Amino acid sequence: MMKILLTAFDPFGGEDVNSALEAVALVPDRVAGAVVVKLTVPTVFGLSVRKVLEAVETHRPDAVLCVGQAAGRASLALERLAVNLDDAATPDNEGHRPVDQPIDVDGPPAYFATLPVKAMVAAIRQAGLPAALSNSAGTFVCNHLMYGVLNAAAKSALPIKAGFMHVPLTTRQAAGRDSPLPSMSVGDMARGIEAALAAVLQHLKGEMV
Amino acid sequence: MMKILLTAFDPFGGEDVNSALEAVALVPDRVAGAVVVKLTVPTVFGLSVRKVLEAVETHRPDAVLCVGQAAGRASLALERLAVNLDDAATPDNEGHRPVDQPIDVDGPPAYFATLPVKAMVAAIRQAGLPAALSNSAGTFVCNHLMYGVLNAAAKSALPIKAGFMHVPLTTRQAAGRDSPLPSMSVGDMARGIEAALAAVLQHLKGEMV
Amino acid sequence: MMKILLTAFDPFGGEDVNSALEAVALVPDRVAGAVVVKLTVPTVFGLSVRKVLEAVETHRPDAVLCVGQAAGRASLALERLAVNLDDAATPDNEGHRPVDQPIDVDGPPAYFATLPVKAMVAAIRQAGLPAALSNSAGTFVCNHLMYGVLNAAAKSALPIKAGFMHVPLTTRQAAGRDSPLPSMSVGDMARGIEAALAAVLQHLKGEMV
Amino acid sequence: MMKILLTAFDPFGGEDVNSALEAVALVPDRVAGAVVVKLTVPTVFGLSVRKVLEAVETHRPDAVLCVGQAAGRASLALERLAVNLDDAATPDNEGHRPVDQPIDVDGPPAYFATLPVKAMVAAIRQAGLPAALSNSAGTFVCNHLMYGVLNAAAKSALPIKAGFMHVPLTTRQAAGRDSPLPSMSVGDMARGIEAALAAVLQHLKGEMV
Repeated sequence: MMKILLTAFDPFGGEDVNSALEAVALVPDRVAGAVVVKLTVPTVFGLSVRKVLEAVETHRPDAVLCVGQAAGRASLALERLAVNLDDAATPDNEGHRPVDQPIDVDGPPAYFATLPVKAMVAAIRQAGLPAALSNSAGTFVCNHLMYGVLNAAAKSALPIKAGFMHVPLTTRQAAGRDSPLPSMSVGDMARGIEAALAAVLQHLKGEMV
Repeated sequence: MMKILLTAFDPFGGEDVNSALEAVALVPDRVAGAVVVKLTVPTVFGLSVRKVLEAVETHRPDAVLCVGQAAGRASLALERLAVNLDDAATPDNEGHRPVDQPIDVDGPPAYFATLPVKAMVAAIRQAGLPAALSNSAGTFVCNHLMYGVLNAAAKSALPIKAGFMHVPLTTRQAAGRDSPLPSMSVGDMARGIEAALAAVLQHLKGEMV
Repeated sequence: MMKILLTAFDPFGGEDVNSALEAVALVPDRVAGAVVVKLTVPTVFGLSVRKVLEAVETHRPDAVLCVGQAAGRASLALERLAVNLDDAATPDNEGHRPVDQPIDVDGPPAYFATLPVKAMVAAIRQAGLPAALSNSAGTFVCNHLMYGVLNAAAKSALPIKAGFMHVPLTTRQAAGRDSPLPSMSVGDMARGIEAALAAVLQHLKGEMV
Repeated sequence: MMKILLTAFDPFGGEDVNSALEAVALVPDRVAGAVVVKLTVPTVFGLSVRKVLEAVETHRPDAVLCVGQAAGRASLALERLAVNLDDAATPDNEGHRPVDQPIDVDGPPAYFATLPVKAMVAAIRQAGLPAALSNSAGTFVCNHLMYGVLNAAAKSALPIKAGFMHVPLTTRQAAGRDSPLPSMSVGDMARGIEAALAAVLQHLKGEMV
């Protein structure tokens, strides 16, 4: 039975919720016959990667999808690549604020996601939900985690596909603002993640034949 | 028993759905003890107003809320006022494209909504959904209908509160675009409309005491 | 010889410059054979209108164009109408913050600009600069001033055309931000205002024939 | 005497001007004591890189700054990195439309700009003009050229710093649209490029000491 590790960050930047965390909580524990293992990850440089890699060692998933909140985006965004750069405009949840630091001084400048990002976007749209490819996961903890997981998988030759999805604010978060940013309902986000995971599984099965 | 007339436009601009129409279809027929009468309105200058006024005469509602689609908006937007101006960038569903025409040459330059727009925005937000006031309903059929209904109510001294709400694209509409515009699920829009109608009814009851 | 009163607000909201004030300073004192009288107006409800009406009495201009800053806009925007509503999200420069107050309890709900706004937009574009019509001047001091001047002109039957233009941030203001908002150079704004005033004068001359 | 190669693309996508080309034309031929060699580059995959590398061989510049138009951006944007990916939504000027193709099958996934991008952003801002870092040059010809030049420099160990700047539409381009996108005057763009080049030269001199 296939297994997917699905992670979300804890709230950051003074907010008390994180849309990614709320969405992941609603994703079922079985998707298309595969087990979904969920993990909450601290919004902290370094530690976030270690926590995910520990879970990878424990659960030996076939794929890892990390999910993060991106205020202002209007759709579920599949990140195409992670870059070898930490450059934080604000501190993480432990107060670190790296500026222009490589994530791994010996690592390549970037990694492309090894998940089938275009198939995932197509699957989400087919489910009637807005989705897009993104060419930048930024230079904060989201990009850091995506790079860290792909870097570890490459260096240890782990048989794991990995990638990152950004999600909008929840409708409830947007409800708190006078000039609302784009938002999605948590249930729709969860359905979109589920559709994306089903596309991942179909891809993995195709590769195994 | 109180009665509310809730209208939505048919699809326009070559689209085969209208988010307002889909949302209104999901609003229950009873809200806070009042009857909700629904009406589909043609996206046509002139005719749209006549259709709504016919329904007003037939159903004698206490309030009228007209709902329209506004691609690009990120929240449910309560329009504060309608202006005495038709100025269409594109034709309506019967091919009319008025430019710089007054809606009523004898009418005032504008009408403020007579619905409690700030209470409606607050009620939608309290329901966990994004909402905002808007100072312009544009100069196309949406504004035309809002002006037309308020003008008729004022000129005939009808005891009717009236107003207009713009809604975003549905998630399904946004799913069809490569660079998704903001969207909401139809169910959330319906819940937001319901919350707004409840605020209208509370307001009407307060006035009757 | 024709005369135009051209006004701009002083800085507000904690900023030390106002793009409208900087742009107006660069407009020549003669445009298309007419005299341009300039006036700096306090960003204050009530007082702003009184200052402009005093200048109208002193200088007896044929037209009044008031200019204000609108952070976030990308072009010179000619306002089509002013509404009879003060509703401030932040205090003015004297600490007043009216909420949902009519500007004139006996005034009409709105006034359309009496300047030829479409001709002004066309003239600015012909000068190679971005321009647009706007259907809302907001509900802060800008709208207040526009309403106040049009209201006074209407009530006193003054033979004065009046209107309002919003301008973007200056490039220098935008340079101070990490995620720059749209901006224009002050010189371009001044050229755009000059082109708009020339359109006003052509319109006034046409009416006199 | 130091030498900088400054390139701009020819118009594409059916437009008859390219803001980058207009801006580069106004940059002086001497900046901070260095010679500026200008080159117009076809908006074509493959050919664009060959043309720039030919000019590099001919002129032996110390640095290369390629400039491209990005409709919708509000400031001069220094690209941080180029990715090894061609994925075109529209054809280039010779009708090529690569989809999900690596630029160099043997190349690394990305290159960071070797120009001092943060110092360039700071210099442009100090000149009073809006500037920003960008984490994505897209996946069309702009990114292709940036990747191609950095790839050639790395593989041939050329002593050349290289990078890419995106510029907004010109005010004249924006003037042609009803809903204007952000724009800048061509003169301001040229001043910004000049300030950025001065920062490059200061950086190069610092390295030589």
